[in-house]
Parts: sequence; structure tokens; C-alpha cells
Amino acid sequence: MALRLPLCFLPRPPASLVAAAATLLQRRHLASGVESQGAGAGVFCKRFVLARHFKGEPKPSDFSLVTEELPPIKDGEVLAEAEFLSLDPYMRVYVLRRPPGGTMIGGQVARVLESKSPDYKVGDHVVGDFGWRTHTVFNPEAHEHTLMRTYKLPDIGGLSPSLGLGVLGMPGNTAYFGLLEVCRPVKGETVVVSGAAGAVGSIVGQIAKIKGCRVVGFAGSDEKVKWLTEELGFDAAYNYKTTRPRDALKDGAPKGVDCYFDNVGGELSSSVINRMNYGGRVAVCGSISSYNADGLPKATIIQPAVVTNELKIEGFLVTRWNDRWGEGILQNLKWIQDGKLKYEETVTKGFENMPSALVGMLRGDNTGKAVVKV
Amino acid sequence: MALRLPLCFLPRPPASLVAAAATLLQRRHLASGVESQGAGAGVFCKRFVLARHFKGEPKPSDFSLVTEELPPIKDGEVLAEAEFLSLDPYMRVYVLRRPPGGTMIGGQVARVLESKSPDYKVGDHVVGDFGWRTHTVFNPEAHEHTLMRTYKLPDIGGLSPSLGLGVLGMPGNTAYFGLLEVCRPVKGETVVVSGAAGAVGSIVGQIAKIKGCRVVGFAGSDEKVKWLTEELGFDAAYNYKTTRPRDALKDGAPKGVDCYFDNVGGELSSSVINRMNYGGRVAVCGSISSYNADGLPKATIIQPAVVTNELKIEGFLVTRWNDRWGEGILQNLKWIQDGKLKYEETVTKGFENMPSALVGMLRGDNTGKAVVKV
Repeated sequence: MALRLPLCFLPRPPASLVAAAATLLQRRHLASGVESQGAGAGVFCKRFVLARHFKGEPKPSDFSLVTEELPPIKDGEVLAEAEFLSLDPYMRVYVLRRPPGGTMIGGQVARVLESKSPDYKVGDHVVGDFGWRTHTVFNPEAHEHTLMRTYKLPDIGGLSPSLGLGVLGMPGNTAYFGLLEVCRPVKGETVVVSGAAGAVGSIVGQIAKIKGCRVVGFAGSDEKVKWLTEELGFDAAYNYKTTRPRDALKDGAPKGVDCYFDNVGGELSSSVINRMNYGGRVAVCGSISSYNADGLPKATIIQPAVVTNELKIEGFLVTRWNDRWGEGILQNLKWIQDGKLKYEETVTKGFENMPSALVGMLRGDNTGKAVVKV
Repeated sequence: MALRLPLCFLPRPPASLVAAAATLLQRRHLASGVESQGAGAGVFCKRFVLARHFKGEPKPSDFSLVTEELPPIKDGEVLAEAEFLSLDPYMRVYVLRRPPGGTMIGGQVARVLESKSPDYKVGDHVVGDFGWRTHTVFNPEAHEHTLMRTYKLPDIGGLSPSLGLGVLGMPGNTAYFGLLEVCRPVKGETVVVSGAAGAVGSIVGQIAKIKGCRVVGFAGSDEKVKWLTEELGFDAAYNYKTTRPRDALKDGAPKGVDCYFDNVGGELSSSVINRMNYGGRVAVCGSISSYNADGLPKATIIQPAVVTNELKIEGFLVTRWNDRWGEGILQNLKWIQDGKLKYEETVTKGFENMPSALVGMLRGDNTGKAVVKV
């Protein structure tokens, strides 16, 4: 059985081998996972290893797809199979902190195939920071050093479990807590969102509307701009590639900017911050404009405006609100159910397309949340 | 009496005329002010008018020195004569908000020559935002649209009244409140100060030392650096013109930077912020590096560090603590009296030298507080 060889860490297994392994995996899951629940035999897992650190835009050759057999689960452990994998801007940055050779980082929604834990049963959906892998054995009691906690996806009323990676997961909570706890918008204020058509930005703008604010978005295509204003209810939106931010803000934020939810950094952010009102608040969620840059780029300084208008700029990681995680998910779910919050997903099919989906997300090809369906 | 002609708004009176007027003024004050207290006759005031907005570094030709006769004071009013005038970086920025033709802005310590107010008596020292003028008539009850409130200099125990413009005035309070309320340093943390040898920065560093922090300063000459470490007790200081901030911080802040009190903005600030620890706080007090620039310069972006380390960057104007003004002055006075807080003044003599003193201060010629003695 060639496929039982330890394939782990092979730099790049031949495609034919991978395909064969995938077919086998599918069969195995039916056999050992869902149906027999804990037969104890290992399953094969495909995972992407970061072969080298990215330089500029990530390339498929920066990754190696490897296949390995997982050991049978032990008492207390759970085996889960990825259904949807998440693509998020932070990945481009965080992975640089780890040496090459490890599994590429990222969250996923997985379905429990086998469980020897009292907390999980077969068929449960789990949200985990398992990395780019099709199958994962985890111990819910172990506090592993992952970016996010592992948790069971709450009942989301029949909606797609993929939302656990988007509006009902990390990006939704990033929008909810970042906007409400860092920007603290007040009814009638003007809120500007950059990366407005992304997984986080599109939710930020809608929550700001729910809170009675005027909302102005910046996005990277005319199509996205149309979606923001015509579908999501943004008061104004602009294509930052074709409109000068200065002109856009004069048009869309005639009373100035009170809150800025920043996903992109760079020159656009300088423009917005330099046009903020006294007492303005900036929530810095990311700076995707710089992620593929070789070194940190330069942008117009913001300090004069920061002093004169006594601005507050605060960076945040959503993990700050780990203890209120459920609150964010349930509030966003309620708004969805009430018809007040819309979401979009850009779904790429096939686990093997993870690298190209990452590149596309970083280029802004996605509208709303970018996920890969295994 | 040629000198009684309305000389107001003359672009540049001949130096001889100015000198003659000054002599006369001196005599008049002795005659109508201090000695006779309220003779009612007007006095002559010299003042600098901003003839045109600065482009780049301010030039003497941007100002006009004019002389005018002040009307006799009315009931409730006070006549005061400037003893010391303040030179502060903010002037370079704030004056741009006003149309040319008005008196150049700035604070001063003046001595009361004549008073028809129950709150002021002859000989009192008043701190006022009167602008660049030798004599001022003001009404303590009127709430004029000045940057700072007018107030009587508290008893500072025989120290020079000029300190009311420095360590015992706006710059001292800027250091005190900005550091303690915005940076909120904790014992054992590392505090970095830019513009460290200036009126504000030199006090910031010493207060941070009083609070048990490691203090690292950046200044613009080897002499200033020596003063900071050998006289003021900074743990380390660097000449930013000859040392790369990156190397300086590696050397002086081996545990990273927790608090940054920023007076300069620009590339130095980007370097410091990009090397801050998780949870770091930045108090943005000014950005003198950009004040003479034509438009806003560019500097390395800070957003990635702001997000990853959840940094807080807050701009502030010291007027935020107007209701605690006396607290700051009295605490700094106590630290001076206890030998814990040292100060330095760079004194330029002669009211007519205000423009050149401003240019020198913006160039960083001063150590500690820059004032002009009339």
C-alpha cells in the first residue's frame, strides 16, 4: 500500500498520488468516520505546508501539498473533516512569524467524523484554527497555541456552516466588536470603512447603518461599489482605484469623518485620517494594502491631524473579546434573521485551490467572505 | 509728536523709530503705569503682525512690526506689559488658520501696569495668550477666543516668572498630563521621548524617571544628548541626526518600547512605533518635523504594528486639562523644589528678535524652553 507510506513533509507529492489519496480519503471517511464512528484506523489528511516565506504576492510554489496518515484518535480526542476553509488577510502577515516547513495557518469549519470526547458528537460542526488541512485530530481539553479558540459552531438556524468563518465567526465579530467597542459610533455620525466590500468591512458598514450613522465605503471595483450602495445600504461608496479619496470624502462625508474602520492602511488611510473631525476614532483592523509589499511602504503622515483633532487610533485583535464571542455571533445572527444584515460569500471549490484563492483574496477578487469549499 | 501718529499696520517701521518708541514706552510705563496707576492716558504697544502665511521656514519678512497707541483702560480692564514671550512649535501650525493681517499668536507672561479689575493688582504676573505684543489691555471677565485661558501666575516661590511659559506653564502641563494621562506609564516600562531636549520633552523624560520608568530620548545634537543623560538622568539618549533609530532603540530599549511621547512625527516616529511592545501607548503631542514642510511629508506606515500589538495612539491638546491646570503647575513646582525636576531656558533678548527666535526654535537651536525677554 504505497499510500500508507509516511508522506508527511514530502515537498510536493505528484498530483496523481494526491488525487489517488483524495479518492481513498473520501472512501475511508464513509467507512471509518461517519458510519462506523471510531473504528480506530487512521485516515489520510491532505495539508498545505508553507515551503518558503512569501516574497511579494504569494505564489503556488510557496506551498507544498502533502498527504499523511493520521493516527487513530485517543480518549478525549476528536477527528474532524474540513468542510470550508477560511481565507483572511491576516494569514499573509502571521505566517511570517513561523519558520517554513509547518502547516499553513488558517481557520476552518469542520464536521466531526469520530469523537472520543463527551463534548462533541459525530456530525457536529467545529470552528477551529487547524490550518490548511482536510482532516484534524484535536483534543478539546488541550489548550493549543492557536490564534483562535476551537469551539462548536452554535445553532445558526439552518444557515450554511460556512458562515461560521464569516459573518457568524471571526470576521463578523471583528466588525461587531471593532466598530462598537473601538470606534464607538454615535447616531448621526459619519463612519468611513475601507476594504468595505470585504468580509469584515461589509458587516461594519451595515452595523453602522443599524446604529443610525451615515456610512461611506471604499472598495476596489465599480461592481463592489454598486453592491455596497444598492444592496447593503451604504450611503455612499467609491472605487479607490478611480476616485481620489479627497474628492470622495468631500462628496460622501460633507460633515467630515467621525469614525474610520481601517482595513487597508496606506495612503487611503492617511487621506481619511487627515480629514477627520475633532474627537474622531480610528479602529485599525488591518493594513492589507501593505501585506504584499517588500518592507513597509511610506504614506502621508497623520500626526498633525491626530494632534489638532485629538484623534484616537487603536489597533485591535478580535481575540480581545474572546470572552464575548457568542454575543457577537448571536447578535449578527439576529440581525440576519431580522433582514437587517446581508452577507455575501465568494466560494472557491476544491481544497487544492487554497493557494490561488489566497492570492485572489489578497488581490481583492472576492466580494464578502472568501472561503474554499473542500 | 510723530510717535503719536497711528502707526498700526505700517508694514515695517524704520528701526530708529521702533527704538525711539521703545524708549518712550519704557518711560511711559514708569509714568502712567506702575507709578501713577491708571492715569488713563494710552500707552504705545509694539506688536508683530503676520504679513503673509509662512512658506517653509518662517522668514523675518513674513512679519511686520507695528506700533499703536492703546486706548485708556475701562472699568474691569487691565493693562499688562510683556516681560517674557513664549516660542512654541504649535505657533507654526495654528497661525495658518487665521488670515494674514492679525497679530502673531503666542503666549506671554506680562506684568500688570494698571488695573481697573478687582482680580488684578499692579505688579501681578499674568499668563495670557495675548500674541506677539508688548502691551495688552484685557478684561478678565471676557471670554475671548484665545487658545489658552488668561490666568494669574500662581506663587512660584521666587523663581523666574518666565517659568510660567515653560515648566510651570503650558509646556510643563503638556508633559505632565500628556505623559500621565495618555501614555499612563507603569513603573519598569520603557518610555521613549522625541524632541527630548525641548520644553516639553525634557520634562516628560524626567517625570517618567520619577515614575520609575526607563527613559530613552531622541534629540538633535550631541550636546543635547549629553545634557539629557548627564544632567536630566535619562537612561539613554541619541542624536537622531547621526544615529539610526533602529540601532538606538536596540541599544537603549532592549526590552522594547511601552510608551512613546511624540513631539516630532515623521520617520523617527514610524521607527519607534514599529518597535513597540504589545499594548503600547503613544501620546502624540506634536509633529515638528513636518511643520516647515510644504504639504505633508510621507513616512513609513505604522498600521501593521498598530494592529498586531494592539497599540493606542492618541493626539491631545493640553487644553483638555484646563480644569486641572493648577494641579500640573503645582506638582511640577514641588518636583523642582524637591530637586527632582530640572529645567533649562534658552532666552533671546529683545522683543524685535521674536521672528529669529521662532526660526531658531523650529530649527531646534534651543535647549529646554525658548523664550524672548522683552
